[in-house]
Amino acid sequence: MTESKRNITPISNLGEFGLIERLTNKIKLKNSSSLKGIGDDAAVLSFANKHIVVTTDLLTEGVHFNLMYTPLKHLGYKSVVVNLSDVAAMNAIPKQITVSLALSSKFSVEAVELLYEGISLACEKYGVDLIGGDTTSSLTGLTISVTAIGECEPEQIVYRSGAKKNDLICVTGDLGGAYTGLQLLERENEVFKVNKNIQPQFDGKDYILGRQLKPEARTDMRNIFSELKIKPTSMIDISDGLSSEIMHICKQSQVGAKIFEEKIPMDEQTKNMALELNINPLVAALNGGEDYELLFTVPVSDYDKVKNHPDITIIGHIADATEGTALVTGAGSEIELMAQGWNPLKE
Amino acid sequence: MTESKRNITPISNLGEFGLIERLTNKIKLKNSSSLKGIGDDAAVLSFANKHIVVTTDLLTEGVHFNLMYTPLKHLGYKSVVVNLSDVAAMNAIPKQITVSLALSSKFSVEAVELLYEGISLACEKYGVDLIGGDTTSSLTGLTISVTAIGECEPEQIVYRSGAKKNDLICVTGDLGGAYTGLQLLERENEVFKVNKNIQPQFDGKDYILGRQLKPEARTDMRNIFSELKIKPTSMIDISDGLSSEIMHICKQSQVGAKIFEEKIPMDEQTKNMALELNINPLVAALNGGEDYELLFTVPVSDYDKVKNHPDITIIGHIADATEGTALVTGAGSEIELMAQGWNPLKE
Repeated sequence: MTESKRNITPISNLGEFGLIERLTNKIKLKNSSSLKGIGDDAAVLSFANKHIVVTTDLLTEGVHFNLMYTPLKHLGYKSVVVNLSDVAAMNAIPKQITVSLALSSKFSVEAVELLYEGISLACEKYGVDLIGGDTTSSLTGLTISVTAIGECEPEQIVYRSGAKKNDLICVTGDLGGAYTGLQLLERENEVFKVNKNIQPQFDGKDYILGRQLKPEARTDMRNIFSELKIKPTSMIDISDGLSSEIMHICKQSQVGAKIFEEKIPMDEQTKNMALELNINPLVAALNGGEDYELLFTVPVSDYDKVKNHPDITIIGHIADATEGTALVTGAGSEIELMAQGWNPLKE
Repeated sequence: MTESKRNITPISNLGEFGLIERLTNKIKLKNSSSLKGIGDDAAVLSFANKHIVVTTDLLTEGVHFNLMYTPLKHLGYKSVVVNLSDVAAMNAIPKQITVSLALSSKFSVEAVELLYEGISLACEKYGVDLIGGDTTSSLTGLTISVTAIGECEPEQIVYRSGAKKNDLICVTGDLGGAYTGLQLLERENEVFKVNKNIQPQFDGKDYILGRQLKPEARTDMRNIFSELKIKPTSMIDISDGLSSEIMHICKQSQVGAKIFEEKIPMDEQTKNMALELNINPLVAALNGGEDYELLFTVPVSDYDKVKNHPDITIIGHIADATEGTALVTGAGSEIELMAQGWNPLKE
C-alpha cells in the first residue's frame, strides 16, 4: 500500500468538519438532478415537480451509544429519528429510510428484533417506509447506518445559507436535556460497574432520560410554519450543540449572530441535573448536543407571528459578519461562541 | 435491558436472508411513492415521471475486506461499484451516491484521502455525484456505508420477479474470477505473514486480481439492451455467486431453472488459478461471488438477438417451478443448485 509513503496527519488535527471539507472540496456536481450535495443537512435532488432530500448517519457502538444503558429498542428508534431530524431541518417531509446493520457475533436474533421494533415504531410514528438496507457482520460491536429520503415542494426547501442581517434566531423546544440525561446515565453506569447491587437513581429524571434515550424529530414544525404563514430563511437541526449549529448557519449565510444567555430555553430538570453534576447549565445547552430541536431564522417582520408560539423561542438575532458570533451574558458582556460540540473524530 | 429475558437464537441459525425475512416480513409500505421496498436489488420510488432507485451496502473491515492486501484507493472504488451494480441490475442509471465512513484512530487523513480518491474515480467513471454522507469514528477498524440512487423510466425497470417458463437465462462477462483472485491474495498473504522477504507471486494473474480488487458495474448493459431491442424479463447482479442469484430469481418469479455447466463463461486465468488452488473452477463460478456481472432472462423469441453478442452468454433456460433449480453437468446428469454463496452472517 502506498499510503505509508505519504505524510501522516492525524485526523484529530482536522476534526470532523475539517476532514470532510478536505475530502470533498474538489467534488463537483455533474447531473442536473443534483441540486445540492454535501454541505447541508440533506442533499436535494430534483426528478420532477417535487424535490427529494437524502440524508444519512452512521452510528457505531462505543462511540455513539453504550449498550450498557441504551435499550436496543430505544437505539433503533433513535437511529431513525436522528435522520428524520435532518429531513425536518430542510423543511421536507420524510418518506423512506434504508437501514444497514453490521453485527458482531454477540448479538442474537432477538436482540436484532428489539432494535427493529424501535425502527418500526419510529417508521410508524413518522409515516415513513423502510425501503431497503443491508445486514451483515462485523468483527466487533454494532454499527447502524440509516439513510432517509424526504420530499418537498421546491419553493419550500430551507437551506442553512439564507440567514440575513437582523433576522430573528429561533429554537424549538428546550436545550441541554439530552446531554444532562447522558451524563446521568454515565454516572449511574460508573456506580453500577463498581457495585452491581446499587439501583440507579433515576427518580424525577424522566424528562432528561427521555431526551437522551428517545428523542423526537421536529417534523411537526413544517405544519406550524405553514399555519403561522412563515418560511424560515435558514434552518439546521441541533445535533452537535447550539454553538456549533449557529456557527454553521453563520458560516454558510456569511453573517454574524448575537444570542442571549437568558433567552436560551431549558427545562427545570435539565438545570437541576446540570447543577447536581457541577456542569454549567448553559454549557449543556450550548455544547451538549443530541437535542434534535430545530434552529432557524425568520425575518424580523415575522416577530409577531413567532413571539407567542409555545414551541418557539426567540434567542437572538443575525448580525453583520464583522460582528462575529457572540453570546450576550446576563451581565451584558459578549463572549465569542466556539464550536465545542460533540466531535467523534477529535481525540 | 429486557432482551436478556427472551429466547436466544444465534443469528447463524437463520443466515442473512432468513434474518432479513424475519425482521422485515411485517413491514408494509404506506406511501404511494414507495413502489418497491425490500426484496429486490434496489428500492423503487416514484416522485414523478421518472422512477428513482435507492440501494445501500455496508462494508466492514475484516469481514468484507482485508487491508493487508487491499489498497485503500481500490477499496474506495469497489465500495461504490458494488452499489452501482445493484442500480444496473434494476436497468436504471446511477446518478448519486452517499458515502459514510467510521474510522478507528489507526487511520490517517492521508489514508482516508486515498480511499476518497478511489471513490471519486468511480464517481467520475460512472457519471455519479457524491451528494452526502457521514464521517465518524469507530473503536476498531473501518466501516464503509454507501447508498446509491438511480433513475429510470417507469417502463424500463427490471425486477427479479418477471422470469417466465422457457425464458433464456443469460449472464454478462465471465464468472469466478473475483473469487480465485481473492484466494490468490489470501494465499500470498499467508506466505507473507510467515516470511516477510518473499515477494508475492502475481505474474500472469492480472485479470483475476483486477476482478477482485477493481470490479466494474455493468451499467453499460442498459444501452446494449436498448441497441439489441430487448428488455430482460428479470435481472439481478451476481454479488454472492451464480447459484444464489439464480435461486433469488426463481423464488421471486416462482419458476425453476436449468443451467448448463459447459455454458458457464470462465476466463482461462480463472480456470488455471482454480486448478492451481485445487478448487473446482465450476465451484468458483457458482459460489464464488463478487463478479458483479448481471444475470438476466429474456424471452426465447429474443434468441437471435442475444446469441452472438460478445458481452452475453446464454447459460440455460427457465423451467417450471416443479422442476427445481438444477445444474446440468457435461455428462448430462442434473444436480440441484444450492445457495452456497458468501454469507457474512453464517458462521
